[in-house]
Amino acid sequence: MAEKNALLEAFRQTDYRIAGNGKRTIRVLKEAFRNIEDDTESDIYGKGKIIEEFQNKIATYLGKETAVFFPSGTMAQQIALRIWCDEKGSKKVAYHPLCHLEIHEQEGLKELHHIEAILLGDKERLIELEDIYELDETISCLLLELPQREIGGQLPPYETLEAISAYCRKQGIKLHLDGARLFEILPYYQKSAAEICQLFDSVYVSFYKGIDGIAGAILAGPKAFTEQSKVWKRRHGGDLISLYPYIVSSDYYFEQRIGKMGQYYEGAKALAQLFNQCHGVSTRPVEPVSNMFHVHFSLPKEKVEAVLIEVYQATNIGLTSYLVETDENHCYYEVSIGDLYSNFSREALVELFQLLDEKMKAQA
Amino acid sequence: MAEKNALLEAFRQTDYRIAGNGKRTIRVLKEAFRNIEDDTESDIYGKGKIIEEFQNKIATYLGKETAVFFPSGTMAQQIALRIWCDEKGSKKVAYHPLCHLEIHEQEGLKELHHIEAILLGDKERLIELEDIYELDETISCLLLELPQREIGGQLPPYETLEAISAYCRKQGIKLHLDGARLFEILPYYQKSAAEICQLFDSVYVSFYKGIDGIAGAILAGPKAFTEQSKVWKRRHGGDLISLYPYIVSSDYYFEQRIGKMGQYYEGAKALAQLFNQCHGVSTRPVEPVSNMFHVHFSLPKEKVEAVLIEVYQATNIGLTSYLVETDENHCYYEVSIGDLYSNFSREALVELFQLLDEKMKAQA
Repeated sequence: MAEKNALLEAFRQTDYRIAGNGKRTIRVLKEAFRNIEDDTESDIYGKGKIIEEFQNKIATYLGKETAVFFPSGTMAQQIALRIWCDEKGSKKVAYHPLCHLEIHEQEGLKELHHIEAILLGDKERLIELEDIYELDETISCLLLELPQREIGGQLPPYETLEAISAYCRKQGIKLHLDGARLFEILPYYQKSAAEICQLFDSVYVSFYKGIDGIAGAILAGPKAFTEQSKVWKRRHGGDLISLYPYIVSSDYYFEQRIGKMGQYYEGAKALAQLFNQCHGVSTRPVEPVSNMFHVHFSLPKEKVEAVLIEVYQATNIGLTSYLVETDENHCYYEVSIGDLYSNFSREALVELFQLLDEKMKAQA
Repeated sequence: MAEKNALLEAFRQTDYRIAGNGKRTIRVLKEAFRNIEDDTESDIYGKGKIIEEFQNKIATYLGKETAVFFPSGTMAQQIALRIWCDEKGSKKVAYHPLCHLEIHEQEGLKELHHIEAILLGDKERLIELEDIYELDETISCLLLELPQREIGGQLPPYETLEAISAYCRKQGIKLHLDGARLFEILPYYQKSAAEICQLFDSVYVSFYKGIDGIAGAILAGPKAFTEQSKVWKRRHGGDLISLYPYIVSSDYYFEQRIGKMGQYYEGAKALAQLFNQCHGVSTRPVEPVSNMFHVHFSLPKEKVEAVLIEVYQATNIGLTSYLVETDENHCYYEVSIGDLYSNFSREALVELFQLLDEKMKAQA
């Protein structure tokens, strides 16, 4: 047990971090509210200026008719799929085997909505156009996650998205975007959010991934769809009397960071290169297509932990607090680049990665 | 439409309010966070000091083994009933015809959990011991709401609660407390929260009724029950990465107001007396048993609106922003006493109610 937490402890001891935007502390809330007038009125059960203005703003940004603010993406996406299933009269959807709904939601989609999910393609790769051709007419909705987080944040070519969208429309299958990291992929595609979203019938975006607010999500789509989503939001227990702590912070950090997604993307590419130069280390994807990627180590987890702890202690820089073991000789962790990366000089990073390279060689 | 909002407009124009704790503005959040250290760490998906300490504190206060913080009571209570149904293997529960789950949640219990609810007793009165005797062995759980809000906030004698609890235990029916306003009834019963809660298998309390925080709820009960509730919280989309905006404010206003429930109760009784002295006005219950009651008017809604608007304009004091029409000659609204009531002198109130009495007589 002590060993298990040694990496976390060593990470906590470091004063500098390469990934992310800094610690998730109360400061995040206080900063967001600093310039909000004290007498600004709360939203009340989904109504009021503070929630409606933000919903309208993001609907416009996404190029969708309407948008609804939700406490979480888990709630928003189950509801999106439920509405499309009810509309078609078939409780079958399709998504990637490593979809958030499949692996992180305690089977909420099945337990609460009795929706069957067809796992499309292979868990080691993206969904491809050929996979879509397998979908039969009973499928109400296909969910695509861009980027596909659990395989390091990969993206299909834009032309594939267009082809998938066209095929689904022809077949009468609704297309839903899990856009938890939609903002983060715009620099790679060189498209606006609205251009990407017009390929989809409904869209979910998150405000605590690249935006790194406190929590909260938006579900966007046609008015009839979002109006139904409000009914389901009430049923799920998400129609809180006041959601403004999440709305105000989402809006604040959206404004702070939406213009920095290109910077984060460039940082991710540069950092991945440095990782790939180290012995026994590779990134997935090799060249990131957003601010995120996975770092894979070809050594047993305990050995990598020992390496990282030494690097942290020598440099006062923390890379990760955890490692996921894939087999007895491999492990990995996830990186998402944010504001902190730009605090590091090229020289400091080169030095850090020389040390990582040496220590990895020594353990091999 | 213009007429419809005239009462709301007149209410908004007033500088003084008799009920509640003041407006739901951003100030409520700012005040709660003023003395919280900036580097206090967020809870992360239900873990961390900030959430665990509050859960333990409220579990102790309620005399229950464990407690889980939820974004809403809607979510907490559906989940409580679902767990008790699954344990018994029967998807049938019982509650009052005006239970929150029956009238305010868009049928979430049925739509998400497929639980059938037996409506017990009559909507015009409390559930009585005789009603309970009708429950058969297929009922998994009985939900009691204390006080019964939709009939003005009424309470059974404590002995009835004890008898209901004993009967349910004997029959193998779980007893769940909708304690949205539990704190508010302690002065009437002259019992501790723990004394009341020991009659129940599970308990929900709210932090934005009498406590008047931003939002949030606690579900408390045995450890096996609350552990299952965390799985369902994830499924519902309520296991947010950060719930601290609601936790910190719940804790802050709990400390501010938990000791004032007796004062609110005394205020409610005094205010109800003043209403009952007015022509065509009566309160339900006649003598409140908590900080809340309903004010019923024996006049058409439009006439009462005209009376209230005149009273607001003459006194600069607002009583209510809305009226609910019960039939063409009757309407009512709900009062919950909070901090603001103590700002009024007896003289000011007597003057206000003399005016109300006169105006009601003039319209009769």
